[in-house]
Amino acid sequence: MTKQKVVIALGGNAIQSGDATAEAQQLALEKTARQLVQFIEKGIDIIISHGNGPQVGNILLQQKAADSTKNPAMPLDTCGAMSQGMIGYWMQNAMDKVLKEQGIVKNVVTVVTRVAVDKQDPAFLNPTKPIGPFYREDEAKEIMELTNTCFKEDAGRGWRRVVPSPMPVSILEHSVINSLVEKGNIVIAVGGGGIPVLETEHGLLGIEAVIDKDFASQKLAELVDADALIILTAVENVYIDFNKPTQRKLEDVSIAELRDFIENGHFAPGSMLPKVEAAINFAATSPDRKTIITSLDQAFYALEGKAGTVVSLRGAEVLA
Amino acid sequence: MTKQKVVIALGGNAIQSGDATAEAQQLALEKTARQLVQFIEKGIDIIISHGNGPQVGNILLQQKAADSTKNPAMPLDTCGAMSQGMIGYWMQNAMDKVLKEQGIVKNVVTVVTRVAVDKQDPAFLNPTKPIGPFYREDEAKEIMELTNTCFKEDAGRGWRRVVPSPMPVSILEHSVINSLVEKGNIVIAVGGGGIPVLETEHGLLGIEAVIDKDFASQKLAELVDADALIILTAVENVYIDFNKPTQRKLEDVSIAELRDFIENGHFAPGSMLPKVEAAINFAATSPDRKTIITSLDQAFYALEGKAGTVVSLRGAEVLA
Repeated sequence: MTKQKVVIALGGNAIQSGDATAEAQQLALEKTARQLVQFIEKGIDIIISHGNGPQVGNILLQQKAADSTKNPAMPLDTCGAMSQGMIGYWMQNAMDKVLKEQGIVKNVVTVVTRVAVDKQDPAFLNPTKPIGPFYREDEAKEIMELTNTCFKEDAGRGWRRVVPSPMPVSILEHSVINSLVEKGNIVIAVGGGGIPVLETEHGLLGIEAVIDKDFASQKLAELVDADALIILTAVENVYIDFNKPTQRKLEDVSIAELRDFIENGHFAPGSMLPKVEAAINFAATSPDRKTIITSLDQAFYALEGKAGTVVSLRGAEVLA
Repeated sequence: MTKQKVVIALGGNAIQSGDATAEAQQLALEKTARQLVQFIEKGIDIIISHGNGPQVGNILLQQKAADSTKNPAMPLDTCGAMSQGMIGYWMQNAMDKVLKEQGIVKNVVTVVTRVAVDKQDPAFLNPTKPIGPFYREDEAKEIMELTNTCFKEDAGRGWRRVVPSPMPVSILEHSVINSLVEKGNIVIAVGGGGIPVLETEHGLLGIEAVIDKDFASQKLAELVDADALIILTAVENVYIDFNKPTQRKLEDVSIAELRDFIENGHFAPGSMLPKVEAAINFAATSPDRKTIITSLDQAFYALEGKAGTVVSLRGAEVLA
């Protein structure tokens, strides 16, 4: 049997839960690394992806706080690149520490990752992703006029910039990522969903948008021909009728079943829904591929079929 | 003849000269990429390294401006990682644009790079590298007491933190960088001299220090067995008696000659001296290796022997 290759998309709590200091985030990543090293011990090749919501949010606030001619605020794509460097570096140190404790010699590499999006993506007509600092209504309206950007009122907390969340079309570094992982390196990639770029006549143009990290991880898993995509979240399983008396835990689930559940509104948009959609997208590409949605501490058992929600093509679906 | 492998250490003006906006820095990098693509057209494999002084300086100011419990200032090692992500991303876009114009298909990869230093390095006893914001004397003294850090008065402009500038001992990602460049990828690495880490019992510890980017580039060039190290600066050649009537341009120069010039105080510490020392260090390792110090627009001609200051072992030195 050839080696398994798995893309693991970390949830937000794998990096930060509350305390935003570098020390606390690095400590959280060390705990994360202790879970991930189980895959390495079993000889499984892994690519680690991660979100960057709280981190890039703080970087954006820092840009605003120091904004001046000498120290101009950097745009969102550049801030995303900064967050990839930061979190990737922390994750490398954390993995190296745990690998060393286990006596495993392996390189851990962070690849700065750009993700191409389509300028025809309907998301550009309807920016939905709030980013950066809160403003008063009058401030927000002035900035909107001056900069041709979009702001929306955010749940009574003030006005906030919203940017589009387009779908990933391609991962520009996928072949490099794949060659690194095929050589046995542990690769950290598509941090924060990747840096969104448009391919234009005049080269690549970084844009102010946010790509969902689960969709970006799914696209990467397809492009590197991974055996499994593991999407980590706060819960061990996906549920239907969540928090109702009829609540039911999903274990092995077919794509057709999941699609029914989506149509019946079982999953919260912006939360479990994109994870379930990314899970379907990957699993639907081949009967040899599966997606697992589970929590960090169940991830390894889930790959062995002992935990989590496992999404795959089934009987009739495969033949269809 | 096998392919040549060259490490090119960009000077500060390759990224920023004055205007600190993302647009201006990306435009400067596009001009830089137009020079570097000449190496690619000739089939030469390149690793690009770069400084980060102005960029990490601005990131540190941003940390201070937004510093709070919710958005705590990140330490210097983390800020260095952020700057690697940022500049690497910009450089990738710039190279991709120019490669596309030339019809060349090649991957450009940024590898987040950590550099191990020795805790016995004498630099730790004498911090010399000023970083971050200026403070009043009383503020500086208070911070020094509270945080066990070192501040010095900086040329009448105020008090500023100083950190050690230790020598690089190893580039932790060198084997990954080498395997990428051997496969024909263009690699961006050791940005800002790399993120300085100490190897401790409890894993790698990022430290508040700055590694000279020319020394880090030299170490990388050794570890990947490069044929040449090109150190770019504002001038086309190294001079002795610089700005005196006896000024003389150095073209082909032996290590022995350069060492004499150093002893006679020809090169300014913190400016040309570390470049000349890095040049010697690399060239001294083998008669098959040379270091070139020149300007960006002469770099390609310099590798062909038509410009720049070329440092190599000579006759008796090789035999010795």
